[in-house]
Amino acid sequence: MKEYKVIFYPGEKEIVAPENENLLRVAAAAGLYITASCGGNQTCGKCKVIIESGKVEGGNLENLSFEEIKRGYRLACASKIKSDLAVRIPVESQLSDKRVLKEAVSKRLIILEQLKNLSSDYKLEPLLKKYYLELPLPTLEDHIDDWARIKRAFKQKYDLHCCSISFSCLKVLPSLLRKADFKVTLTICQNGEVVKIEEGDQTKEHFGLACDIGTTSIYVSLINLLDGKILSTSSDYNGQIAYGEDVIHRITYSQKGDGLKTLQKAVTKTINKLIEDVLKEAEVSKEKVSYLVAAGNTTMTHLLLGINPRYIREAPYIPATNSPLAIKAFEIGLNLGEHTYLYLLPGVASYVGGDITSGILATDITRSDDLTLYIDIGTNAEAVVGNKDWMVTAACSAGPAFEGGTIKHGMRATTGAIEQVEIGSDYEPMIITIGHKPAKGICGVGLIDLVAEMLEAGIINQKGSFNEVNSARIRTKEGIKEYVLAFADETDIEKDIVITEPDIDDLMRAKGAIYAGVSTLLNSVGLAISDIDRVIIAGNLGFHIEIEKAIIIGLFPEMDYSKFSFVGNGSLLGATLSACSKQMFEKAQQVAGSMTNIELSDNISFMNEYMAALFLPHTEEKRFPEVFKNLRSRI
Amino acid sequence: MKEYKVIFYPGEKEIVAPENENLLRVAAAAGLYITASCGGNQTCGKCKVIIESGKVEGGNLENLSFEEIKRGYRLACASKIKSDLAVRIPVESQLSDKRVLKEAVSKRLIILEQLKNLSSDYKLEPLLKKYYLELPLPTLEDHIDDWARIKRAFKQKYDLHCCSISFSCLKVLPSLLRKADFKVTLTICQNGEVVKIEEGDQTKEHFGLACDIGTTSIYVSLINLLDGKILSTSSDYNGQIAYGEDVIHRITYSQKGDGLKTLQKAVTKTINKLIEDVLKEAEVSKEKVSYLVAAGNTTMTHLLLGINPRYIREAPYIPATNSPLAIKAFEIGLNLGEHTYLYLLPGVASYVGGDITSGILATDITRSDDLTLYIDIGTNAEAVVGNKDWMVTAACSAGPAFEGGTIKHGMRATTGAIEQVEIGSDYEPMIITIGHKPAKGICGVGLIDLVAEMLEAGIINQKGSFNEVNSARIRTKEGIKEYVLAFADETDIEKDIVITEPDIDDLMRAKGAIYAGVSTLLNSVGLAISDIDRVIIAGNLGFHIEIEKAIIIGLFPEMDYSKFSFVGNGSLLGATLSACSKQMFEKAQQVAGSMTNIELSDNISFMNEYMAALFLPHTEEKRFPEVFKNLRSRI
Repeated sequence: MKEYKVIFYPGEKEIVAPENENLLRVAAAAGLYITASCGGNQTCGKCKVIIESGKVEGGNLENLSFEEIKRGYRLACASKIKSDLAVRIPVESQLSDKRVLKEAVSKRLIILEQLKNLSSDYKLEPLLKKYYLELPLPTLEDHIDDWARIKRAFKQKYDLHCCSISFSCLKVLPSLLRKADFKVTLTICQNGEVVKIEEGDQTKEHFGLACDIGTTSIYVSLINLLDGKILSTSSDYNGQIAYGEDVIHRITYSQKGDGLKTLQKAVTKTINKLIEDVLKEAEVSKEKVSYLVAAGNTTMTHLLLGINPRYIREAPYIPATNSPLAIKAFEIGLNLGEHTYLYLLPGVASYVGGDITSGILATDITRSDDLTLYIDIGTNAEAVVGNKDWMVTAACSAGPAFEGGTIKHGMRATTGAIEQVEIGSDYEPMIITIGHKPAKGICGVGLIDLVAEMLEAGIINQKGSFNEVNSARIRTKEGIKEYVLAFADETDIEKDIVITEPDIDDLMRAKGAIYAGVSTLLNSVGLAISDIDRVIIAGNLGFHIEIEKAIIIGLFPEMDYSKFSFVGNGSLLGATLSACSKQMFEKAQQVAGSMTNIELSDNISFMNEYMAALFLPHTEEKRFPEVFKNLRSRI
Repeated sequence: MKEYKVIFYPGEKEIVAPENENLLRVAAAAGLYITASCGGNQTCGKCKVIIESGKVEGGNLENLSFEEIKRGYRLACASKIKSDLAVRIPVESQLSDKRVLKEAVSKRLIILEQLKNLSSDYKLEPLLKKYYLELPLPTLEDHIDDWARIKRAFKQKYDLHCCSISFSCLKVLPSLLRKADFKVTLTICQNGEVVKIEEGDQTKEHFGLACDIGTTSIYVSLINLLDGKILSTSSDYNGQIAYGEDVIHRITYSQKGDGLKTLQKAVTKTINKLIEDVLKEAEVSKEKVSYLVAAGNTTMTHLLLGINPRYIREAPYIPATNSPLAIKAFEIGLNLGEHTYLYLLPGVASYVGGDITSGILATDITRSDDLTLYIDIGTNAEAVVGNKDWMVTAACSAGPAFEGGTIKHGMRATTGAIEQVEIGSDYEPMIITIGHKPAKGICGVGLIDLVAEMLEAGIINQKGSFNEVNSARIRTKEGIKEYVLAFADETDIEKDIVITEPDIDDLMRAKGAIYAGVSTLLNSVGLAISDIDRVIIAGNLGFHIEIEKAIIIGLFPEMDYSKFSFVGNGSLLGATLSACSKQMFEKAQQVAGSMTNIELSDNISFMNEYMAALFLPHTEEKRFPEVFKNLRSRI
């Protein structure tokens, strides 16, 4: 794929982007924000740019006058890059340039770098391996049995022992060997068991799956185990959402009648659908998939396995197991081959599960001297503090606000979700939606942007209540105050997309719980925010979050932006890396075992921290001096 | 149980027998044969004995005159021993006393002795073990997960590792632990996996099953794993019989449509019925059974597992596997607990299976200097020659004649089967049936007795053809010559029980194949019959066989009777011992691996030996000099 250099003016911001990339996305990736109230859907005509040199395709729509087109004006959202470019953003299209530079592209680079860093420690070595064998044909002189023939040839060719054969393989062995003219590919498990036998040389096709089982969302990636490349990824809401938004509600539901069975079926149905998606997209047959490595919080893994999670919730909060697990995937209803294994990454405690172990595995915390704060933001938020010598961890329930739950127009970060918001001095918003389609709702990142912008614009005060402001966008409906982010005719849902005062309350509770959790965890080991060398933000939300905005609302502690980095969906990443590296999967148990869990649920210090955090950004100015200063300067 | 001393006159044969034992059985056990054409059913009135001292109960039936009763006459079959006895067998009741003394009682003693011999080498140590644990209750301070709690307590109490837990156990773990107040019994597999968890202390109830899967018959024993005692045994025809009488016919059937599935279902149905029987008899729940150790010939184990046996039959005769196998019993449709394992003893080759390995394990051949010939007589006959340094083995198809198949009135050795026959000079037979019930047919042992007696009595000649003899019992029906062993009114089947000339041909082919197999095997290692130090006869047939009679017909080679011993159902015995001793089960593979198989099917030497053996006892007088001499003396 060709890449071109694009320089934006004013500011001479330079970025490299692939051919045919949309210019609005490139500008956003460069941290430059262009007015686009339609979300990049080529309808509002607001994202005008001037092509000063180079070539773009499209972009000359009817929204532009003939004169404008002649002068080089194009609509950024409709322009595809075809050469190196010099692009000027005219004043009318500029919104702000005060943002932190942490655009999607550079975040992706951080992940790639981490992969590279990790690959020097961990080999690309699948958990199950394939071996091709050409067996000598049996004769009256060489009449050892079929299975012994395989063992002998395997030893001769690879100098390794395959110690046993699965019953399902043994059952078809005689017919298969002869049909294959004694040329077969073995798939061998970590314990030396042959779990699959295929005709001919099938070693060139070997795939694994990685899965992050979140309370709200599930992600599945398909990996080519020959080169570690991710071939496709798909995600969806966890089908259990209908039975409760957080783990506590799920546990409660599981105690009713067939609740446990219902929840298990719901999650396996979602996973099965995602597996189907990723296989279809990459045109891979499920028979070629040897295993799935999954990570999830402890309640999610209990429900996936059909284990009663009741005692996770009742003091003293005991899970059935935190150990890594290997079972046949079909045993829990996953629609994979009879030979396909499900590996579950080990957890730490009832509220710090395999998703956190997985995320930590995906970082270099366990090999670094830097005191690191790792925060995974999801329906449950977990924090880990430590370095290569020690780690402590704690969990708190943030609720589903960040994943779009409970928020009136909340939604997951999919096409049409508002993910960037900028509010001008006239209270008018600039929104960018995922996929640049007409807006359908607001995702977690958009919500953080929005609330921060509303606070800075003076639409709301530090308690999260609406100020008296003169704008058609601020109104009261059925006694509830709301701000209109997009009017019905600009949206895909044919109604106004709004944020209400109760939505803001929800967000404050969610961010307050996370901030309080981090504070309490640090207190528990006698540390302060200032001791932290770096912060790694995990979770898909985290991946797209504006650090500045997250600090403004008090979700992240106030500190130098350069200390923040993003691992994205750490749980999925760790599962993906573990699927590629036997060594990493084996290290997981040690990593999980080295984390000390601090229980927050009955912790008085946590409750005090939480109450103090129910403010924007916080009740204590000394914790967010810059934010307070900036807010004051705007009045 | 009280025991009494019984002395029989004439001959002063002394035997110890339990109180209430039937006097006819005691005489038979002492090697004394009393006329009893009804088979011991208290109807023919022929088994008269005189009680010279001591007390019996019953026996004074209407068949006896008042005068006889007064003089101490009783019917042996109706008399129960109540004290030490002196018993005279009157001339009219005597049949023969020239028999070899190898009655059931002494044979059983040999088995017990073998068990004792073996127990010094092998410990009583089950393949799966039970452990009782009282776990400390979880607290906020001691909050490790349930499975880790078990591992920790197990290590503390037993200083052993349980490395994994079955998924079915893990699924119920949290609820079960709390219901059991954290007092549980673990069942742990050889690889360290916990396969069952029960509430409370269940270590006092632990059972195993042993199973011999014969082509014609299946035996199942229930064993108390705490003391190695056999609690109950049951047997039945292999349900596959309807689909072919020998392994070749079964293999042929398995190639038709759903044949393989049908055969698998048939055998598991039989085994399930036998398991039900033995559990019911001993009042043991199937949940208390940890495993079943089974031995069978290679075709039988393939069919049990549902593996296509086609290549067993086609040159170069390759089985899927000869290795020992451990699978969950329910996987092949056995009606046992979800945790219950099926262990299969390893085989040697396509026609020398786990039943032979099992039988060899049950003897001391692998620890003896004596050159031993081991013969297992069933539908397939297998022979092993060797000692602690080397072993060779060969198999030949004897056909089902010895198990009652193909013989017109053939039947298995169950109640009502004629098992002993003596023919007087008037061509009149004395028969004894199993259970002393009216005759239903002839079992293998009875058939050998019968043909030997017919040869000695001159009813048939050495070619197996009927001589011209003047007796109402010898007749021709529909062109086929036959000898009437019991007339309809004496039988349970309301028709004459006969043996025909084709029956005798069948028997000759069966015994000829076995003799030829043994000869060829010996030839192959440059040995002769005279080199053999001892002969061990296995198979249920073997257990009851009259050595003298078997030599007369040429089934066994002519040699000193004292060299013969009997292991009974060696396959079942070896499986039983292996179920009691982990060490023995582990030794099985080494034993199987140390046997060199000699293929007879395309062996010219075998064919020549076979043709020469189709004669009574053999075409070559020098091989059976004593039998020839004796036969000549009778003419």
